[in-house]
Amino acid sequence: MNGTTDTVPADQPWDESHLSKYFFHTDPIPRLSCTDPQALQLIAQEKPVVLTDTKLCDTALKWDLDYLAANMGTERYMVFLSKNHKFKYYDEAKIKLYKTNFVPPTRRLDMTFSEFVKKLRDWKPGDERVYLQQGLNNTVGQGIVVDFLQFNWQWLNIQQKTNNWGPLTSNLLLVGMEGNVTPVHYDEQQNFFCQLVGYKRCILFAPEQYERLYPYPVYHPHDRQSQVDFNEPDLESFPGLEGLRGVEAVVGPGDVLYIPMYWWHQIESLPCLGNTVSVNFWYKGGPTEKIEYPLKPRQKLAIMRNVEKMLLEALKEPAEVGSLLRSLVLGRYT
Amino acid sequence: MNGTTDTVPADQPWDESHLSKYFFHTDPIPRLSCTDPQALQLIAQEKPVVLTDTKLCDTALKWDLDYLAANMGTERYMVFLSKNHKFKYYDEAKIKLYKTNFVPPTRRLDMTFSEFVKKLRDWKPGDERVYLQQGLNNTVGQGIVVDFLQFNWQWLNIQQKTNNWGPLTSNLLLVGMEGNVTPVHYDEQQNFFCQLVGYKRCILFAPEQYERLYPYPVYHPHDRQSQVDFNEPDLESFPGLEGLRGVEAVVGPGDVLYIPMYWWHQIESLPCLGNTVSVNFWYKGGPTEKIEYPLKPRQKLAIMRNVEKMLLEALKEPAEVGSLLRSLVLGRYT
Ligand SMILES: [Zn+2]
Ligand SMILES: [Zn+2]
Repeated sequence: MNGTTDTVPADQPWDESHLSKYFFHTDPIPRLSCTDPQALQLIAQEKPVVLTDTKLCDTALKWDLDYLAANMGTERYMVFLSKNHKFKYYDEAKIKLYKTNFVPPTRRLDMTFSEFVKKLRDWKPGDERVYLQQGLNNTVGQGIVVDFLQFNWQWLNIQQKTNNWGPLTSNLLLVGMEGNVTPVHYDEQQNFFCQLVGYKRCILFAPEQYERLYPYPVYHPHDRQSQVDFNEPDLESFPGLEGLRGVEAVVGPGDVLYIPMYWWHQIESLPCLGNTVSVNFWYKGGPTEKIEYPLKPRQKLAIMRNVEKMLLEALKEPAEVGSLLRSLVLGRYT
Repeated sequence: MNGTTDTVPADQPWDESHLSKYFFHTDPIPRLSCTDPQALQLIAQEKPVVLTDTKLCDTALKWDLDYLAANMGTERYMVFLSKNHKFKYYDEAKIKLYKTNFVPPTRRLDMTFSEFVKKLRDWKPGDERVYLQQGLNNTVGQGIVVDFLQFNWQWLNIQQKTNNWGPLTSNLLLVGMEGNVTPVHYDEQQNFFCQLVGYKRCILFAPEQYERLYPYPVYHPHDRQSQVDFNEPDLESFPGLEGLRGVEAVVGPGDVLYIPMYWWHQIESLPCLGNTVSVNFWYKGGPTEKIEYPLKPRQKLAIMRNVEKMLLEALKEPAEVGSLLRSLVLGRYT
């Protein structure tokens, strides 16, 4: 069971054959109306939910490649190129800072939207895959701005206020090829993930699965990414994978997935169903709530991040962080 | 080779037969005159040295049981009782604080010095062993005070100043039975360890041996103590023991051993050679020196202690500290 609903809507273009089989179990993420009190409760509890009728970005449902090409403007945008279907994020600043012999798994090439569309249209198997990931900023064309201003800001503002979130920090526009995969990672912000064009499978794991997903060290360019490859899970190095259990949903045009802060997620553009376009709404988390015990898993995760940061600050040398942590733990807490 | 000198002085009452054989190698701690520039250099470098001629406590060389019984005063003093030869220190405050099911390996029984002496004199195999460990304070009798005031304070003050140490915090008087062992631990202060009566074997390990000696968690009543039992080393649980390497010396009346802050030490009253009397001079370390990289092992050790303390402060529950540290390290830094 891959978290799909039992009855398939007549207009649903995908089925189980579009979903890779993985080694872990998933339950479905609830699909609810945004007027359903249960949906609001899930958001308040920082649990994922797919909202089917927010009309959050209805003006952007027409953002297909042609429309974007005509309206995005003439600036260069951030495009990642990958020799396989995975686009694993890396932090360029951390590569420079720690001069590791890190080999980026993708390369970044800034290009105009027309150049990007040409790459997409000319693509044939064996070519590098491409994925545009560009923050919506003041360089975008007039048409996009008009659509953007007509998003359902009222609903968003209510969510932000009700849940005591911080400010909206960015909107990332994602334009990808069918079959592109953003491997499992977590973000440090609240996210309304708005699907505009095409279909994406979103697999999520609660923050308490932290020790089952083995994130890279904080100072590593792959900070916040899991070291685990779902296609080749290494159960010997990562024995916690055994008990991994997720939730998932496939989102299509008009769906909004709430990805709570610190929830792990892997996002896959379904194969064979065309390009995908999505837009993210990232909000800072609320001011640190008053500390209550027992702590929430995501608070523990934040503590772990702080330990790693503090150690790097004190020791300066990333290699020393690992060495000290091993001395601290092995034989003493194991 | 157990770190003893090659030529045995004519008046030396002990030989190799008084020294237990352990699984690790040791080198001898230098025995030097306090006027030897090399001795002062060792102290400055925070390396152990035995000083043979400080005249630090010459007025206390007469502190045998009779003298102490006559001069200590009538207060009750701290005496530990053990069913075996080991007196492993534990922190009573931490037992109360963390309500673990900790079973103290010794019991504490406060008694007058005469009661203590009677216990020593009446002792026969099978009885609990006893070890008096009492800070010299304003309750001690006039005779002791007079001797104390005639210690070589001038030399001590010069050492304190030269090495930029903090204040003298305490003088611990130790009166033990032959064969008593204080198992391996480290202290967070500089220590001049002054031998007055009888002979003690002192085995030390540099702070860089931290990961070979597996101290208990900071919140544990046995904080600062090694989990390792030198008589029954568990190489499976503590594989770092393999490479353990120490230094050692036997100190007798008039000798002063400098035990640098954070150096591990096990102290053994030699068997068959009578009771032992020693007095400790504990000084706070200097104000944190300006941080230079690479950090010294003892600075790293202090950082580790801070990580554990910070985590306990944040998580409240000692069991949670271990759990979080395991999540932080296993599969990520191993
Ligand atoms: Zn993400
Ligand atoms: Zn000690």
